[in-house]
Amino acid sequence: MSDRNIKLTIEYDGTHYHGWQIQRNAATIQGFIQNALTKITQTETQIVGAGRTDTGVHASGQVANFHTHAQMSPAALQKAVNALLPSDIVIIGAAEVSPDFHARFSASSRTYRYTILNRVYPSAFLRNRAYFLPRPTINVDSANAVCRALIGNHDCSSFQRTGGGRANPVCDIYESRCWKEEDLVHFEIEADAFLRGMVRAIAGTILKLHDAASPVDQFRKILEARDRSAAGASAPAYGLCLTRVKYDL
Amino acid sequence: MSDRNIKLTIEYDGTHYHGWQIQRNAATIQGFIQNALTKITQTETQIVGAGRTDTGVHASGQVANFHTHAQMSPAALQKAVNALLPSDIVIIGAAEVSPDFHARFSASSRTYRYTILNRVYPSAFLRNRAYFLPRPTINVDSANAVCRALIGNHDCSSFQRTGGGRANPVCDIYESRCWKEEDLVHFEIEADAFLRGMVRAIAGTILKLHDAASPVDQFRKILEARDRSAAGASAPAYGLCLTRVKYDL
Repeated sequence: MSDRNIKLTIEYDGTHYHGWQIQRNAATIQGFIQNALTKITQTETQIVGAGRTDTGVHASGQVANFHTHAQMSPAALQKAVNALLPSDIVIIGAAEVSPDFHARFSASSRTYRYTILNRVYPSAFLRNRAYFLPRPTINVDSANAVCRALIGNHDCSSFQRTGGGRANPVCDIYESRCWKEEDLVHFEIEADAFLRGMVRAIAGTILKLHDAASPVDQFRKILEARDRSAAGASAPAYGLCLTRVKYDL
Repeated sequence: MSDRNIKLTIEYDGTHYHGWQIQRNAATIQGFIQNALTKITQTETQIVGAGRTDTGVHASGQVANFHTHAQMSPAALQKAVNALLPSDIVIIGAAEVSPDFHARFSASSRTYRYTILNRVYPSAFLRNRAYFLPRPTINVDSANAVCRALIGNHDCSSFQRTGGGRANPVCDIYESRCWKEEDLVHFEIEADAFLRGMVRAIAGTILKLHDAASPVDQFRKILEARDRSAAGASAPAYGLCLTRVKYDL
C-alpha cells in the first residue's frame, strides 16, 4: 500500500479548547482530530496544522495534513472523522495532495480576522465569537488607515508575545484592513507568517490609537520600536479567527 | 410613584434552557429574566412573553413586558439586567410603553424562522442553530410552493402537538416562504398566532413532501385532514427561532 498525504480543512469553535496544539491532559483541537484519525485508520496518526491557534481562538479555515496507508476516499474519511469529533470541530474539506505538501511549511499565507461587537448591548449568538466593546464607538476610517500602514515587510517584534521569540520576527503583510458590518467591526490581516499573539496585539493597538491624533504616525513609531511594551494591550482571544490558509501548490 | 409598563426585546440562544416559560427546578429564559428584574427593582417582578418557545428553541426578537414602580430609565434598566443575565440571554431593547400594552395579547403577529443546514458536513458555529440535514438536497422551489399554500386563514390542527389543544385552532397566516442562502435553507412564517409545535410540524411536513409529486396538493390534503397523524414528523427544536413580534399599538 502506498503512503497517501491527506489535506484537511477545519472549522472550529475554540471556546472550550486549550488551543490547536496537542497537550497532555488538556482538550485540544489537534488532539481530538488525531484521536479520531487514529481510531479510523487503526494506526497512530499525527497531523500538522498550518497555524497554532491559542486557547479560545476559532478557525473557519484551518488546514492540516497527515500521511496514512488507509485507502478510504477523502470524502468517506471526512464523514467518518466528523462522526467521531465533538460538534464544535468539523472537517469541512478533505483532499488527497502531493506527497511533499506540508500544511505549515507549504503555506504561502495565512489570514486572521478579529471581530468586535461595537454597540451598547451584547449578543447571545456571538457571545464567544466577537469581542464585546460597548464603547468607545470605533472610528473605522482611522482604524483602517492604521491597518493600511501595516502592509509591507516589517519587523513585528512590537506585537510578539513576551517569551514567544521566533528566530525571524520579520513578517510580510500582504493585506490588512478594517471595515464595519452593522454593529460588527472586523480587522483582517493576511501575511506569510505571524508571530505569537500578533493579531491580538495589533487589534489592541489599533483600538488604543483609533481616535488618537495622527494614529498612523503613532502606529509607525510603535512598529519601529520593536518593543512589545510600546504597543497596546492584547485584545481578548475569543474575537480571533483563522479564516484562510493559502498554498501556491 | 406611578406604575410603569416596560417592554423588553430579547435575544437568546435556547440550547441550554428548558424553554421560555418559568418552571420550578428548571433553567428557563423567563425565570432568569424575572430573577434579574426582581433583584434590580427589589420587588418580586413577573414578566409576560409574546411567545412560549420550547426547550432548545431560540429567539432573536422575543418580546416581554412587566409593570414596575422602579424609576430607572429603560436604557439603564437594560444595562443592569444584561449585567445579571447569563451571556446566552440578552435584552436587546427596552422602552416604556402605554399601561395597556400586553406582550402576548397586544401582539398582531409573530414570525418564526426554521433553518436547515443542507450540505454533507456540519457547521461548528451553527451546530445548535441550524438543523443539520446532509441529504436529500432540498428542492427549494417545491418547498416554497408548499409554503405559499399555507398563506391564509386555516384550521391548523394537523400541525398541533398532540395534547397541545388550543380552544381555537384557526390561524391567520400572513406570510410563509422558503429560500436558500448558501448552504442554509430557511422557512419563515408570520401569523397572528401559532399552535404548539406548529412550525416544527410544518417544517417536517415540507421536508417530507419537498420532492413528492404534487406536493402542494398533498399539503392541502394534510391541512384539510385536521389530524396531526396526517402530517410529517416534527423537525428538531434547535433549528427554530422566534424572530419578530409585531404590535399595531
